[in-house]
Amino acid sequence: MSTALESPKMVVEAPAECCSLAATPIGAADAECLAKRLKALSDPTRLRVLSHVAAQGCEAVCACDLIEVLDISQPTVSHHLKKLVEAGLLTREQRGRWAHYTVVREAFTELHQFLDLR
Amino acid sequence: MSTALESPKMVVEAPAECCSLAATPIGAADAECLAKRLKALSDPTRLRVLSHVAAQGCEAVCACDLIEVLDISQPTVSHHLKKLVEAGLLTREQRGRWAHYTVVREAFTELHQFLDLR
Repeated sequence: MSTALESPKMVVEAPAECCSLAATPIGAADAECLAKRLKALSDPTRLRVLSHVAAQGCEAVCACDLIEVLDISQPTVSHHLKKLVEAGLLTREQRGRWAHYTVVREAFTELHQFLDLR
Repeated sequence: MSTALESPKMVVEAPAECCSLAATPIGAADAECLAKRLKALSDPTRLRVLSHVAAQGCEAVCACDLIEVLDISQPTVSHHLKKLVEAGLLTREQRGRWAHYTVVREAFTELHQFLDLR
């Protein structure tokens, strides 16, 4: 539906195969990848931006709406959206003046599975 | 089973009520708490330490075993364990010379629920 316009080199690659904390201990490469994604989630403002995009489900959200709803400046919103795209958690699609963002569900499935201790 | 010996003031408090990214956008207070927990998970070495403790299930793991298995120095292992305890992700119990660590399952249930986009 949406097209990521940023360089693929910047996006964090998913681990070759998903792992869970409750299973065998993870290796160094998977730990590196998961840590990058978790780092992108470790800022409260970024979590609020992400949560507004995620709450729209599969619908792309305009950066302009986030600025209004969260009452955060455009440079701040853009900075956080860029970090989330680089971490492979959002995709970005330019529509005229504004970029629109959608969650990458697969990335969250992996994190969700990793944090499953049941 | 295990007793947390560190000051409760240092441990990140859980959000009053759990939230999910797929539901309504999160508030500033919940975002602050979740970001702290996610920040504690955003280091690859720390993830490997945590994953070794989590893989033992409900059993407490001696810091001495982590040093041996992961081939990491004692100060480094201690530093990462301290961060995980402060974030409310592990509990610590002193047994003689060595401290033993267990995962706080409730903390992971919250993170797991938060990252559920299904």
